[in-house]
Parts: sequence; C-alpha cells; structure tokens
Amino acid sequence: MSLIGKPLEAVDTPALVIDAGALERNIARMASYFRGSRAVLRPHAKTHKSPQIAHMQLEAGAVGITCAKLGEAEILAQAGIRDLLVANQVVGEQKIARLVRLARYARVTVCVDDATNTEQISAAAQAAGTSLGILVEVDIGMRRCGVEPGEPALALARRVVELPGLVFRGLQGYEGHLVTVKERAERERRVREALAPLIETRRLIESAGIPVELVSGGGTGTYDITSQIEGFDEIQAGSYVFMDATYRAVEGPGNVFEPAIFLWSTIVSRPAPDRAVADIGLKTATPELGLPVADGIAGVTVLGLSEEHAKLRLEGEARSLRPGDRLRFLPGHVCTTVNLHDRYIVVRDGMVEAIWPVAARGRSQ
Amino acid sequence: MSLIGKPLEAVDTPALVIDAGALERNIARMASYFRGSRAVLRPHAKTHKSPQIAHMQLEAGAVGITCAKLGEAEILAQAGIRDLLVANQVVGEQKIARLVRLARYARVTVCVDDATNTEQISAAAQAAGTSLGILVEVDIGMRRCGVEPGEPALALARRVVELPGLVFRGLQGYEGHLVTVKERAERERRVREALAPLIETRRLIESAGIPVELVSGGGTGTYDITSQIEGFDEIQAGSYVFMDATYRAVEGPGNVFEPAIFLWSTIVSRPAPDRAVADIGLKTATPELGLPVADGIAGVTVLGLSEEHAKLRLEGEARSLRPGDRLRFLPGHVCTTVNLHDRYIVVRDGMVEAIWPVAARGRSQ
Repeated sequence: MSLIGKPLEAVDTPALVIDAGALERNIARMASYFRGSRAVLRPHAKTHKSPQIAHMQLEAGAVGITCAKLGEAEILAQAGIRDLLVANQVVGEQKIARLVRLARYARVTVCVDDATNTEQISAAAQAAGTSLGILVEVDIGMRRCGVEPGEPALALARRVVELPGLVFRGLQGYEGHLVTVKERAERERRVREALAPLIETRRLIESAGIPVELVSGGGTGTYDITSQIEGFDEIQAGSYVFMDATYRAVEGPGNVFEPAIFLWSTIVSRPAPDRAVADIGLKTATPELGLPVADGIAGVTVLGLSEEHAKLRLEGEARSLRPGDRLRFLPGHVCTTVNLHDRYIVVRDGMVEAIWPVAARGRSQ
Repeated sequence: MSLIGKPLEAVDTPALVIDAGALERNIARMASYFRGSRAVLRPHAKTHKSPQIAHMQLEAGAVGITCAKLGEAEILAQAGIRDLLVANQVVGEQKIARLVRLARYARVTVCVDDATNTEQISAAAQAAGTSLGILVEVDIGMRRCGVEPGEPALALARRVVELPGLVFRGLQGYEGHLVTVKERAERERRVREALAPLIETRRLIESAGIPVELVSGGGTGTYDITSQIEGFDEIQAGSYVFMDATYRAVEGPGNVFEPAIFLWSTIVSRPAPDRAVADIGLKTATPELGLPVADGIAGVTVLGLSEEHAKLRLEGEARSLRPGDRLRFLPGHVCTTVNLHDRYIVVRDGMVEAIWPVAARGRSQ
C-alpha cells in the first residue's frame, strides 16, 4: 500500500521525514547567498546521500557535488551527476581501480596527501586512459588528514603536476574543528586564523609557477566566512539542506536555515506521570553531537537513548501524552542519523508527497 | 567477482568481518553453560540481525529467539524460525495488525506494560483468529519501560488473563543498567537486589492463582547470575556471539567469550610520525559505549571518530604503518555497529568462507 497522498499520521514509526517546503527553502536560501558571492557552492552529499536532493542543489546553481566516499560518488554518477569531488583520500588498489573507471562517466576530482598514493592513482588513470582532477589536502588544524601547509604542500603539488593522468586543480582545507563554534565573531576569528596558512600555501604554489584553480573547504557553520576569504573559492556545506539540533545551536545557520527533517516517533510506554519512552533509539538516531530534541511540543526532554528507545522527561501539558501518540524529534547530528535509514518520507502540507531512497546509505567503501 | 575462497587481504575496507571459528566457539560455550542450567537460553537477535546465526543458536540448543523489533521477528519468521519473543511493547494499529498476522507463522510472545495496548492486541488477535503469548514487563530499576513490581504488575496480569486471544505466559524484567558493572561480585550483588522485586511479583501473581510459566530477561554480562536465581527462567543474552570492547572489559564475559567480529580497515593517511587515520568512522562504527579498539597490533590508540575517519595515535612498531596497510578493530558496541553494515564477511583460517546479509538491519519498525 503506497503512502503517497496519505497524511503524515498514516506513516508508521520510527521514520525519517523530510518537510519538502523547508528543504526547498533551505536550498534556495543557500543558492541565493552564492549568487551574490565570488565563491561557489559544491554541496556535500554525505548529509543526504540522495541523487534526488543533489539534483535539486545543482538545479539551484551548485557547481557540482562533494562526496565523502567513492561509493557515494558512484551512486551519484549513476544518477547523471557529472561533476564530483571525492573530498577524501582514495587508498588501495581496488578503490583506485574504481576511481579511474568512474572518471569515464563524470569529471572526478579527488584529494591526496601522500606521494605514493598519488603515484598509484596516476598509474591507474594512465592505464585506464582517463584523467583525474587532484586537490592536495592541507591540514589546517583539524589534525586529521592532509599535509602540512607550506613546503610539504608545494612538494606534493609539484609531484601531481609531473605525473601523467592527473590534473592539479588546487587545495582542500577543511576547518571541521571550527564549524560549530557557537559565537559568530569567535568563529570568524578562529576560521580566518586557521585558513591563513592555507591561503599562504596557495600563494606559495602560484609563486612556484603552478596555477591554482581553486581552494575548496568550508561547511554549514562557516560558509559565510570562508566564502568571503580572498583565495578561498569553493564551499562544501552539506547540513544546511536539513539542519539539525547541533547546527541550530550555532549563531548564523541556526537562524538562516530551517529544520527540514525530523524523526517521526511513537510513545510506546508511559511508566510514570513524568516519564515516557519513544520508539527512536541508537539504531534510528545518533547521539555523538547531542541528543535528538523534541519538536513542536513543549515539556518533552530527551534524557537518553538506548538501542530502540528514547527516555523522555515530561512536564506540563506533555504529561497528557499516551502510548500510541506521535511526536517529532530533530536529529542531534543529521549526517549520521540519515545513514541509519533506508528511505525518506517526503511530506508537504502534512501529506506524503514522495518516498526517496537514501540511495548511498551504507556506501562506506 | 565473488570474494568466497579469497584471503581476507582481498576484502576491501571498511568491512565487518566474522571469525567463523570464534563465533562457533562462543555459541557452543553458551550452549554448554545452559545444558548444565535450570534456566534456558533465548538469544537476542538484536545483536546479529541474522537468520543464519539465529539458526546456529537454535541448533546448539536455544529454546527460541528474542527480538527487539517486530520487523526483526518478521525477517526471522520468514527464515523458518518458529518461536519468537518480541521483548518490547508493540504499539499502534499498524504494528499490532502485523503482530497478530505474524502469529500465524510462528509462536509469538510480546511484552506489555499498558492495559489499553493489551486490549488492542487482544482485539486484533481475536479478529485475526490468532493467539499471542504475553509477558508483563516489570521495571526493575532501568527506568525505561515496564510497570512497577507488585500490585501494578498483578493488575495487568489479571487483565491479560481475562482478555481473549492472549495467553499470559509470565514476566519480563531486564537489568540493562547493570549488565556492564565491571566487578563480578558487585554486579552479582546489584543484580540480585534489582531482581528480588521481580521474583516477589512472580510469587504474588502465583498466589493470586495465575500460573507463571516463565520470567525472562538477562544479558551477556549477567547470564551466569540471573540463570542461578530461583524463579528466573529464560536468558536473553545477545552480545556473547560476537563480544565487543565494552563486554571485554566486564569480568566474566571478558574471559569466557572470544572476540568474533572485527572491523577491517585501511590506513588512509599518515600525516605525522605519531599519527594515522583509518577508514572507519561514525558511519561504520559506533562510539556511545566506547571507541573501537585496535586488535592484533600494539601501539595503536583510537583517539576519536568522525563520520568516515578514525584518528589514531601510533607508538613503537606501529609507526611503520603506511597508507594502504590494513588493520582490525574490535567494535566498541557490537549491536549498534552491526546495524551500520549490510553484510558480514565470514572468514575461517584467513580465507573468506561466506557472505551473510545483515538481514534485519534497519528493521526499526
């Protein structure tokens, strides 16, 4: 029995529900921002893992799509998306073989931070008769992947330029450790400080006679800062399409973008007047950045998640909740929450409009 | 290209790998324990979500299978498993309709903690011409679902007995808040204290002339305590099949059962002599009970997980790790980690023997 055309109340729980209007407005707001900006938007598909939403972003003006994983890029290429950045290292013979074949179907750019890995990609691209765009990833303080700014980045850029089958396009630097600094002014100060060595590295590479087409990075918490920095060109924001409780707490995005996704849930137990249990848990929602937050109802506090349960504290009117009643929660971290679900229920004006698969869910290779 | 018959080294990463021998030994060890016990074992399928493994447990002597969700029970029933406990409340018209239909294909028992929900299940069972086994869930201190011990539990048991289409079978009480108390003696003391009101409730119901066939509960951290308590009959342990870093730290199970599952991972970046990045992250491993732990190699410490990356600190010999090298991690929490994966790679003596789907993954309804 199809749910399409039915009211939200007919959707069983737990379910991941998109508010179609809010999604469209978030995409339009970000697109509008970038129409007035020198920098361009390459939205990150790790958030939604959906070709449908990626196409909506492109139709609104995005220059291409960012992916975390090669497997995500493959799903998007199969859906006709032709300009893809895999914003991570692709390591090992099997994945490199897939990467260079994917380059037959789309313009593919990938990050590198190691000379041997870069040489392997070059050899495979040459053997497959394809060509890959390359960004040298620079560590700007997140202490994850990336070479050090300055000479190490220049040395790797030179190697990329020398190698066949590769096109050196520029640099990636991601300020992931700063995207949720709450205060706008403090965030801006720290982001500008962190990105300065990246921009200096760009100048260093250019001084060495190597053109740098772009510097890519940025997120939902920093797009309006990074896009204003001279020498920073492409913003990879992802979460803005849906928002979540974490980004709602960050000055800036918390005001500009609407919650466009929620967990639809049922009260399954009312063990005491001030306590209830809902049917979301660690297998449908993630806690690492903060617990889900009840939405559209006062007096409901999520105390904790176990595998299939959320313990709730009830106050005031919320104490009238009974087993079987439904309520909505904003995810604590939308990117990992989406990854737990097979499909989106898409609702407009309270009615189910579509069901979209989370097509790249689980594509971790 | 099938992986079967290939060495583990041919398996790309990240992947969830079962050590077939260790799995079989864990199942045999627990079965052996219960051959000497008055209590019986009904293993919890929420850990593995796999009909294959459930059948192995039944073949070793388990009396039936426990599920967290109706959707898991449906998958197991389709695989021929005929005695299923849904160890939670099944709430709402849609799920109750599925529940009573499932009872045509298997002996199904479900937990209740609310009179109205119980009445709805009765009405649906009667209308469908089926019959459901019922356990009244009692809160023994976890403060999640369940009625209070004593009179409230007796009152609900009486209601179950009165209602058509229901067979009152007994009580469930789960000491989930105590299963990972580290010290064996302290754990035993607290579990016995928590379960005493449950056993008293059993006696109260029996004194009222209502037979109590069984009291069900228990976990991997407590099976050897709960199974020894007079009046406690059925143990729902799940994690013992695989073990994880959390249960490895608990005295008792940490010694008795072997790690039988691991995350197979690749080093994707070596940004500094003492730092590496592996390709597991929050989309392939879960952090809520503790980070994954490197296995089979000294000097590797997981510092944190982001969505697709694990940051590692390297010491000693481990500093020779290079991008492309593979290593194993024990999951921090196996039940939620399994839920992130579509399949198990099953390895014996270093060679891939089978690929099993995580058939009930994502069956959260």
